[in-house]
Amino acid sequence: MIEKKSKERDTKPATAKLLIACPDRSGIIAAVAGFIAAHKGNIVEADQHSDPLENAFFMRVEIEREGFDLSSNLFPVVWQPLAERFQMRWRMEWGDRPKRMAVMVSKESHCISDLLWRWSSGELRVELPLVVSNHPDLQELVTRSGVAFQYLPVSSGGKKQQERQVLELFDAQKVDFVVLARYMQVLSRSFVAAYRDRIINIHHSFLPAFAGARSYHQAFDRGVKIIGATSHFVTDVLDDGPIIAQGTLPVDHRDSVEDLVRKGRDLERVVLATAVHQHVEDKILISGRKTIVFD
Amino acid sequence: MIEKKSKERDTKPATAKLLIACPDRSGIIAAVAGFIAAHKGNIVEADQHSDPLENAFFMRVEIEREGFDLSSNLFPVVWQPLAERFQMRWRMEWGDRPKRMAVMVSKESHCISDLLWRWSSGELRVELPLVVSNHPDLQELVTRSGVAFQYLPVSSGGKKQQERQVLELFDAQKVDFVVLARYMQVLSRSFVAAYRDRIINIHHSFLPAFAGARSYHQAFDRGVKIIGATSHFVTDVLDDGPIIAQGTLPVDHRDSVEDLVRKGRDLERVVLATAVHQHVEDKILISGRKTIVFD
Amino acid sequence: MIEKKSKERDTKPATAKLLIACPDRSGIIAAVAGFIAAHKGNIVEADQHSDPLENAFFMRVEIEREGFDLSSNLFPVVWQPLAERFQMRWRMEWGDRPKRMAVMVSKESHCISDLLWRWSSGELRVELPLVVSNHPDLQELVTRSGVAFQYLPVSSGGKKQQERQVLELFDAQKVDFVVLARYMQVLSRSFVAAYRDRIINIHHSFLPAFAGARSYHQAFDRGVKIIGATSHFVTDVLDDGPIIAQGTLPVDHRDSVEDLVRKGRDLERVVLATAVHQHVEDKILISGRKTIVFD
Amino acid sequence: MIEKKSKERDTKPATAKLLIACPDRSGIIAAVAGFIAAHKGNIVEADQHSDPLENAFFMRVEIEREGFDLSSNLFPVVWQPLAERFQMRWRMEWGDRPKRMAVMVSKESHCISDLLWRWSSGELRVELPLVVSNHPDLQELVTRSGVAFQYLPVSSGGKKQQERQVLELFDAQKVDFVVLARYMQVLSRSFVAAYRDRIINIHHSFLPAFAGARSYHQAFDRGVKIIGATSHFVTDVLDDGPIIAQGTLPVDHRDSVEDLVRKGRDLERVVLATAVHQHVEDKILISGRKTIVFD
Repeated sequence: MIEKKSKERDTKPATAKLLIACPDRSGIIAAVAGFIAAHKGNIVEADQHSDPLENAFFMRVEIEREGFDLSSNLFPVVWQPLAERFQMRWRMEWGDRPKRMAVMVSKESHCISDLLWRWSSGELRVELPLVVSNHPDLQELVTRSGVAFQYLPVSSGGKKQQERQVLELFDAQKVDFVVLARYMQVLSRSFVAAYRDRIINIHHSFLPAFAGARSYHQAFDRGVKIIGATSHFVTDVLDDGPIIAQGTLPVDHRDSVEDLVRKGRDLERVVLATAVHQHVEDKILISGRKTIVFD
Repeated sequence: MIEKKSKERDTKPATAKLLIACPDRSGIIAAVAGFIAAHKGNIVEADQHSDPLENAFFMRVEIEREGFDLSSNLFPVVWQPLAERFQMRWRMEWGDRPKRMAVMVSKESHCISDLLWRWSSGELRVELPLVVSNHPDLQELVTRSGVAFQYLPVSSGGKKQQERQVLELFDAQKVDFVVLARYMQVLSRSFVAAYRDRIINIHHSFLPAFAGARSYHQAFDRGVKIIGATSHFVTDVLDDGPIIAQGTLPVDHRDSVEDLVRKGRDLERVVLATAVHQHVEDKILISGRKTIVFD
Repeated sequence: MIEKKSKERDTKPATAKLLIACPDRSGIIAAVAGFIAAHKGNIVEADQHSDPLENAFFMRVEIEREGFDLSSNLFPVVWQPLAERFQMRWRMEWGDRPKRMAVMVSKESHCISDLLWRWSSGELRVELPLVVSNHPDLQELVTRSGVAFQYLPVSSGGKKQQERQVLELFDAQKVDFVVLARYMQVLSRSFVAAYRDRIINIHHSFLPAFAGARSYHQAFDRGVKIIGATSHFVTDVLDDGPIIAQGTLPVDHRDSVEDLVRKGRDLERVVLATAVHQHVEDKILISGRKTIVFD
Repeated sequence: MIEKKSKERDTKPATAKLLIACPDRSGIIAAVAGFIAAHKGNIVEADQHSDPLENAFFMRVEIEREGFDLSSNLFPVVWQPLAERFQMRWRMEWGDRPKRMAVMVSKESHCISDLLWRWSSGELRVELPLVVSNHPDLQELVTRSGVAFQYLPVSSGGKKQQERQVLELFDAQKVDFVVLARYMQVLSRSFVAAYRDRIINIHHSFLPAFAGARSYHQAFDRGVKIIGATSHFVTDVLDDGPIIAQGTLPVDHRDSVEDLVRKGRDLERVVLATAVHQHVEDKILISGRKTIVFD
């Protein structure tokens, strides 16, 4: 197995990330920054966003662990009064351990091979306990990187049973979030609910154009001059969840459907990796049907 | 009135442009190139495209006028047998005079002011006999560039009558093609028929996403991370004609609808100008619902 | 003269912008946000940046004017202790009046005509008291927009005298900042000093590649596949000042130098307008040879 | 070893590619197309380019193998008179067998892992007999894909001897072209001569900006707002050969050198793969210090 480079991890000091959403009003930044300063925390990065239409406020604060005088046990207790005062939804990511990512694939190798490389090179700071597939095709590609590959076909006992097996595996492996790297199955409502806001998909079009299957064929038939790819959180409605990242690429009349597919692969890989990277770094807040990405 | 710079026009030799569409088979290029060589024509530029799905062949040949021994009168006669042999649809643009462009506008100034500048600077090689609008707002902007502005409101006698007036004006001015520079009216079927494949529109979204009105509002509500603009030929179906050019631009959660509108303006201007430029240079062939742009 | 649309101005509440640079340490955000909250200010937008290499901290805070209990007279007095405690360089932009912009041009019209349109349409919130040129060519273009045009040739009394005349005009007109919209003269050291960090230039290449004259010729000779444009603050060293914005565009072997010039014009206009927009909105902080653009 | 998908290979008919460079004059296209038609060849794709400054003409013709009545033995004989008449430099690529590609690497894995995936998935139609490195680090990554890895350090016997060993290996493996996938050694003049116009490098900047080492550090120090990558043919002068492909990506003040390196990796991989793809498809002609890429 390839030894992961830990260089990148070392250049930055260890930080905790505080994510906040609440109704907008004066004094929130002062209260939060004052709280952190009072507990000897150094703010390494802070981002805010006010949505005047929804009267909503969003904030992400990255606090240096060294010097901060609150432990992960103590913090919720001390923080609670302030959170209640401003009616905050919040979470604190202490960064003590990397998130655990599971990947679901079918037959296409371009996204998973890209993720495997980013993981093994240390660029993507996650643990990767397993890859699940409804087809056996990518077994060797995955296992030779030292990652467990679980083949769980849908056909045998129906989708319901297969999804139950998948969820049991994820549960056993303490999976934090799921990446659909060209997994060609629609997930059931209950599966989505189990990992609400924690399933990231890559769709091979510039959504909302060309949702559903055969996106490149649709794009080819419409004669577009630009193709796209979209990474989004999965919700109950197909290809409709909050968009995290998008990319586009020029094409022209010389490009066949096969050319669109080929060019699109490069786009899909980069757009998916961007979204995964932002999720891993806790840079994303969900606001209704949209994302706020503090990048 | 500003004197048009003629520098750009002078650097290139005068050329005629031959555009061909026909069923695909062997020997077309040889036949066409042989014909031109036999008549002492020098091919300055040649582009071909084969569409295997439609078994169609498209070609654009730019021939230096100097030396070519066929006049515009004689050419059709001599060319006809070859054209029939290959069942060609074709046209020859002799480039003796600039095309005459009419522009239709409503209240938004960004596209028309951009076209006016490109025209007055000599970048766009067209004559611009008039701008028509269903609102009076842009009158001064247009007339101070030395271009006639005709205010023809829709309300008074209904759209039918207004379109008739517009067509009469275009007819009187020998208009070759029409640009809808943010003209906020849907044209009737008969108007479109009068300038079939010669009406160029700019739509403020990445079609087919967000067709119809309020595209930026739709984009904002969907939370896209990229906005777009699309220039296309107008057909009977709204926002559905063959796409000529598209452009995209990244946006994020900080962008309000107003920001999308502002950023989109720059995109619309450039995408529309690109499409108009390609049409003026006779670089576009229409193939069903698509364009072939030999750029 | 065209009436400026004030729609865009109205959608956002009036704000003051506080810009801060100081050595990095804990508690700055808390102190600043606490100060503003104590004076009943609502923070509409806040951005920070820590530069660990230079141990520097930068901050931009946008405060709603309504409710904030400090006037422009009082603020410096009350703020001073905090500013001293953190060794801040700072400025407060109250936004009471638009900045006054002067533009310098030579013969090329694309950038100035673009700025004129953005100004007259109300997109660019500045006053535009005059355009100065060392050539008479653009006089009509400028004056018909209702802007004063001053022709000050360099030849007559040498550059020194011409620059003195320009500075006197700027002084009389209370010019806040200067835009070089393809002004083809190198400014003297003393001129630059008079408007330090307030002269914005557009260079027709992707700096640092192809500095100096004839950038598109250089790019053509090198056979690049992408061209660029760069907007930067002017310093004593030619084409070397802090970069504000850059843009790029693909080209290929079919593009002549004239094509590069034509395509480049669109790039230059947008990149310059972006930089001017960011300066007008007080979004730029200069840090040595770099800019921090809180966009 | 992963079985290569041959799907993509099958969709297109087998073709031969004829590449021509000669002085520009009338009748070349007619002569070439007439020759091919006379020998029952069907032209699937044809591209031409005239360079008026150099009075040079370039052409690429793709001919369907089926039906074409000249064999690879016979073609040169029958073609010679026409080639001489127009003083052509030419080559005919029959496409009978994939090109054989060798890759040289040092320690960075992003480009080689990308090339390995493109090769193993069948996207890149080459044979890949070996990867050579002056460091042992990437041995496992390469060999587990079923590709031979040869570790040839420079230190031991000097660069001269190492290069001799490399060339012997390439010779034994009948290598057609060489890809430098972040090989951190300058090749000697004689090595370059052995594979003139057949060594493709990826440089981690937008050349000609930031040539030489530590490009991202240079870019960071200059405070650019866009980074780039450049793929070019290697010549005797460092980072100066004909550019094949370039790409760019926006960055800002928040990006550290490490961020530039990380973002740049994605750019480098795609730009290098694009250039290699174009070379493999025989789409590139070299004209002095430039490339003509018929894409």
